[in-house]
Amino acid sequence: MSENRALQRANILANHILRSPPLPSSLSLSLAREVCLQYSPPELNESYGFDVKEMRRLLDGHNTEDRDWLYGLMMQSNLFNRKERGGKIFVSPDYNQTMEQQREITMKRIWYLLEKGVYRGWLTDSGPEAELKKLALLEVCGIYDHSLSIKLGVHFFLWGNAVKFFGTKRHHEKWLKNTEDYVVKGCFAMTELGHGSNVRGIETVTTYDPRTGEFVINTPCESAQKYWIGGAAKHATHTIVFSQLNINGTNQGVHAFIAQIRDEDGTICPNIRVADCGHKIGLNGVDNGRIWFDNLRISRENLLNSVADVSPDGEYVSAIKDPDQRFGAFMAPLTSGRVTIASSAIYSAKVGLAIALRYSLSRRAFSLTANGPEVLLLDYPSHQRRLLPLLAKTYAMSFAANDLKMIYVKRTPETNKAIHVVSSGLKAVLTWHNMHTLQECREAVGGQGVKTENLVGQLKGEFDVQTTFEGDNNVLMQQVSKALFAEYVSCKKRNKPFRGLGLEHMNSSRPVLPTQLSSSTLRCSQFQKNVFCLRERDLLERFTSEVAQLQGRGESRESSFLVNHELAEDLGKAFTEKAILQTILDAEAKLPAGSLKDVLGLVRSMYALISIEEDPSFLRYGYLSRDNVGDVRREVSKLCGEVRPHALALVTSFGIPDAFLGPIAFNWVEANAWSSV
Amino acid sequence: MSENRALQRANILANHILRSPPLPSSLSLSLAREVCLQYSPPELNESYGFDVKEMRRLLDGHNTEDRDWLYGLMMQSNLFNRKERGGKIFVSPDYNQTMEQQREITMKRIWYLLEKGVYRGWLTDSGPEAELKKLALLEVCGIYDHSLSIKLGVHFFLWGNAVKFFGTKRHHEKWLKNTEDYVVKGCFAMTELGHGSNVRGIETVTTYDPRTGEFVINTPCESAQKYWIGGAAKHATHTIVFSQLNINGTNQGVHAFIAQIRDEDGTICPNIRVADCGHKIGLNGVDNGRIWFDNLRISRENLLNSVADVSPDGEYVSAIKDPDQRFGAFMAPLTSGRVTIASSAIYSAKVGLAIALRYSLSRRAFSLTANGPEVLLLDYPSHQRRLLPLLAKTYAMSFAANDLKMIYVKRTPETNKAIHVVSSGLKAVLTWHNMHTLQECREAVGGQGVKTENLVGQLKGEFDVQTTFEGDNNVLMQQVSKALFAEYVSCKKRNKPFRGLGLEHMNSSRPVLPTQLSSSTLRCSQFQKNVFCLRERDLLERFTSEVAQLQGRGESRESSFLVNHELAEDLGKAFTEKAILQTILDAEAKLPAGSLKDVLGLVRSMYALISIEEDPSFLRYGYLSRDNVGDVRREVSKLCGEVRPHALALVTSFGIPDAFLGPIAFNWVEANAWSSV
Repeated sequence: MSENRALQRANILANHILRSPPLPSSLSLSLAREVCLQYSPPELNESYGFDVKEMRRLLDGHNTEDRDWLYGLMMQSNLFNRKERGGKIFVSPDYNQTMEQQREITMKRIWYLLEKGVYRGWLTDSGPEAELKKLALLEVCGIYDHSLSIKLGVHFFLWGNAVKFFGTKRHHEKWLKNTEDYVVKGCFAMTELGHGSNVRGIETVTTYDPRTGEFVINTPCESAQKYWIGGAAKHATHTIVFSQLNINGTNQGVHAFIAQIRDEDGTICPNIRVADCGHKIGLNGVDNGRIWFDNLRISRENLLNSVADVSPDGEYVSAIKDPDQRFGAFMAPLTSGRVTIASSAIYSAKVGLAIALRYSLSRRAFSLTANGPEVLLLDYPSHQRRLLPLLAKTYAMSFAANDLKMIYVKRTPETNKAIHVVSSGLKAVLTWHNMHTLQECREAVGGQGVKTENLVGQLKGEFDVQTTFEGDNNVLMQQVSKALFAEYVSCKKRNKPFRGLGLEHMNSSRPVLPTQLSSSTLRCSQFQKNVFCLRERDLLERFTSEVAQLQGRGESRESSFLVNHELAEDLGKAFTEKAILQTILDAEAKLPAGSLKDVLGLVRSMYALISIEEDPSFLRYGYLSRDNVGDVRREVSKLCGEVRPHALALVTSFGIPDAFLGPIAFNWVEANAWSSV
Repeated sequence: MSENRALQRANILANHILRSPPLPSSLSLSLAREVCLQYSPPELNESYGFDVKEMRRLLDGHNTEDRDWLYGLMMQSNLFNRKERGGKIFVSPDYNQTMEQQREITMKRIWYLLEKGVYRGWLTDSGPEAELKKLALLEVCGIYDHSLSIKLGVHFFLWGNAVKFFGTKRHHEKWLKNTEDYVVKGCFAMTELGHGSNVRGIETVTTYDPRTGEFVINTPCESAQKYWIGGAAKHATHTIVFSQLNINGTNQGVHAFIAQIRDEDGTICPNIRVADCGHKIGLNGVDNGRIWFDNLRISRENLLNSVADVSPDGEYVSAIKDPDQRFGAFMAPLTSGRVTIASSAIYSAKVGLAIALRYSLSRRAFSLTANGPEVLLLDYPSHQRRLLPLLAKTYAMSFAANDLKMIYVKRTPETNKAIHVVSSGLKAVLTWHNMHTLQECREAVGGQGVKTENLVGQLKGEFDVQTTFEGDNNVLMQQVSKALFAEYVSCKKRNKPFRGLGLEHMNSSRPVLPTQLSSSTLRCSQFQKNVFCLRERDLLERFTSEVAQLQGRGESRESSFLVNHELAEDLGKAFTEKAILQTILDAEAKLPAGSLKDVLGLVRSMYALISIEEDPSFLRYGYLSRDNVGDVRREVSKLCGEVRPHALALVTSFGIPDAFLGPIAFNWVEANAWSSV
């Protein structure tokens, strides 16, 4: 091959000489092209202004070595669709495979990682350290392929954690180790055809038969069929079933049970019907299915009874009397879903940006002068403006995702509310950010972005589901605002200071912003915090006052919320963006003076100012004047110019191995050469 | 099956009775659900406030019967993947097929439509009527599948039109009829690996050999390989080759040639190498390929010589001396690409909205009161706010697309500039709108949107390429602004009034807006026009003044444009949105008083006000005050409530047959029933 390449080079040179005769006039000079396009690696022209390894540790936050170990395992195996492009090795799924093929290869990859001990302790170990390691490894799986991490997530985080959190000792002993070893394959049947976000409305119904000591699970109608159940179509042997529990004619609300749906050979069990959800726009490695229960009988012990139980003679007992609170207790452990979704969305955005920015540092288009060289994409101010603010947001959100994970693994009953609110906001904002980033990256790399092997475009389909699963983003944002509303009303009513949810700033007086915004003011962290606090405070006050007004006129609270959905969304965003800003500020504050802190300061200012620039609330409600907003816009442009020299270092710091990026991130001329066909 | 269904119904009823015992307390009452969810068709609950057939004629604009004929042809054939879901027939491609399978079935569909005479006259007939018919039929093909319309588009609009417009009699006689009959299959090799948007920079080089009277086409290096060439990977027999033409050592710039690449049996010709572009995130029915030319010799007559020619002894002759103008003349006929892209983007948005809105009129979620019924999605103000403004935009843009087609088919040398500018703006705005609409529709239907059979999600991948092909949208928007700049400078310099491009309003004094905006003012067409004109005018003045200032400081015009890219994009958008508003105003004006005109007025006001609400320029540059903008926002909410009752009628008016929408647009409970498995 290297001989081939040498011949090719010689050919190119020969051709070049042949077609470059003396130029007779200035006219033809302007049209003639002296040389063919050559690939020049970004590393040749860009330098690192800070320690990228240190930055990577900061961004990944934890378990760097474990991550690298897993990257290595995947690169070593033939199962991960290794291929060579332009002299480099890449691993990523073959998305030209049918759904059926993608499902099988995903399952094989899971077996391989099992053999290598990747999941050791995922359910049998406990404590923050074990949980962080598990989260890190899951993130790496998601960087390879979202189907892989989702299929693992369903088995360990939904099925496994449901057993762990909703179940008690008898369930733990029977299932946790077996789940970790894939002796059983679990799925999680909550969503139904008729009810997704509104879990309380599910129609599956379970009764208790005291004569046999069994629960009887039934799907009373088509809308009650379990839907979207990952693993159900093909591989799962067992499932958690969410169902209304009807005891002696009284509906005790939604409860969770364990049911077997397939035997070891994969044969569907009696009284179970299963169908496929069919082909999807992404995640085709996950076998989503539908389940009907035909008066399926399960042992009384299969009720996951941490919150409530039914005695052998059929008496319902629960320590939590209020059914709303009981429902809440059931749902609380599911927060882990939002935590992992938020975090994996950011890793997906990182993959997109690493590819698009590396390409923009090697691809040229158009020249500015008649005979000048073509300009590197990232040297266009418009291209900087497209990608660099997204890069800054990804950094800030990366710290926010880490912070969320930390609160989550150290959770206590007291932190549940905060985790619920923050995870709802971050899940929505980070998944929308990912979709928006991938779309911009796909357009920024032009047609190359629609080739699946270049990933940026494909990731859109693979991650799209995140904006609606585990709660529609809009609904989640409204939940954030409702929680803030409740907090506000409660503090005001009891005349107590705000505590928690980052609302403490509301105890001080309203921040006053300077009328003139110089560059140094705009980059000052205190100013940025003040602006974000002012917005959050004002929107919260507006929202509560609007809702109160409507309630005063006899409207119900629910419909008052609905009418004010725009304010609710603005507030949810203001809350979440402030929380994000705080996490990058915290990260920055911990660093010693030096280049790392400096560049993080730049990135943080970019995050703060682009958030201001993009939110019309600042002008709409007059937090900033027109001149101020003009200053912000100019400062964003200036920051683009200052972040530009760090672009390569900033994406290198993501720590994603070359093999997990697309060919256009590297020598795309050679990757497309005839010799590679 | 109907027996099955009856049994099922009886079962449901029995189950329902079994689980509805007398309720003992108010607590259980709030949790119990009386009945299972039932599908109720939107038609049962919604009424049509206007003549939907008349509205459909207005929206399609032309060739309604021809469209219906083609819809019928596709529904009748087994080739179009007909399937039953919930008792209804649907046609849409099986996207679980591999790329190879999708390519073959697409080609079979093309043959079938050929047999049915669909393409009769597409190249051999001329004149506006023939062109409109062709455009209408292509649009219908695109509603079935974007791959189908793109593969036809490459053959007829790129290859065929290149022969027709760049070629002369000798080419017409030889190729046009044969193309229409698919005796030859054409492709269009313009883009190269190294150069896409920047066509002038292509590196393929052609020389002339006067001894043999042949051109010699060569790919001098890897970056010069032809890339993304639709049809090249598998089916095409011939191609247009864009190449630098080097005559006696002088580069005469980009010219177009005809070359054969495969023989009738599909064997690749000597001196040609072909490779595949591989799997894509959509359009896998199109066989995009790459081509290398190894000193391929073609007859002198294969130069498409409408603009320039080479005499047998090798002398270059052209009526157009300026190479820039010559290049422009070559590119002008390609405008048809932007016309068809803009129009097909709007039809795709229509499919998405028809599905999402019909679903939102049959899907319920959450109840507002403890025991109340769940609320229809479209009765949530937030859901209205998500979808109805997009519906209004789609209406307005639909008229704009029709208008563009009319100018295009009636084009004269004088209208070329206007067509270029308007088609650039509309292509960018309409394709972005489509992507945005599909994303919102996909999220609005929840998880159902990720099933490919429900189309909304799949269409995103299928149409994604539109934002960058035939010119990156951002580049096109900058071109619009550059053209407006040139117009402005030229009028000012010559002290002449503005004429054309809709800039005539700049000859009058700056419109003065009222300080208070009542509801009736906001809905007044003159007010809306004034606001849009004011924005365009002010942004144009700002842009030219900023560019002039920089030029005054010694910057080149090109780099002055680049630095002001944000203003350029704002201006491009202002220009295009004003052009769109004008077309829906024109359509409205032509209607007699009545319900059709009334509802179109509502839709037009929604379009105007949502455009104002979404563009921060109005506040940023002070065209409107904060109070004004608050009024606009409230009016949009009010309009949502007023458009809501028309939602079904408005999407029915799209005239897309049920079979071309997704199953969730109809009885999605039955479509998912066990009996359908």
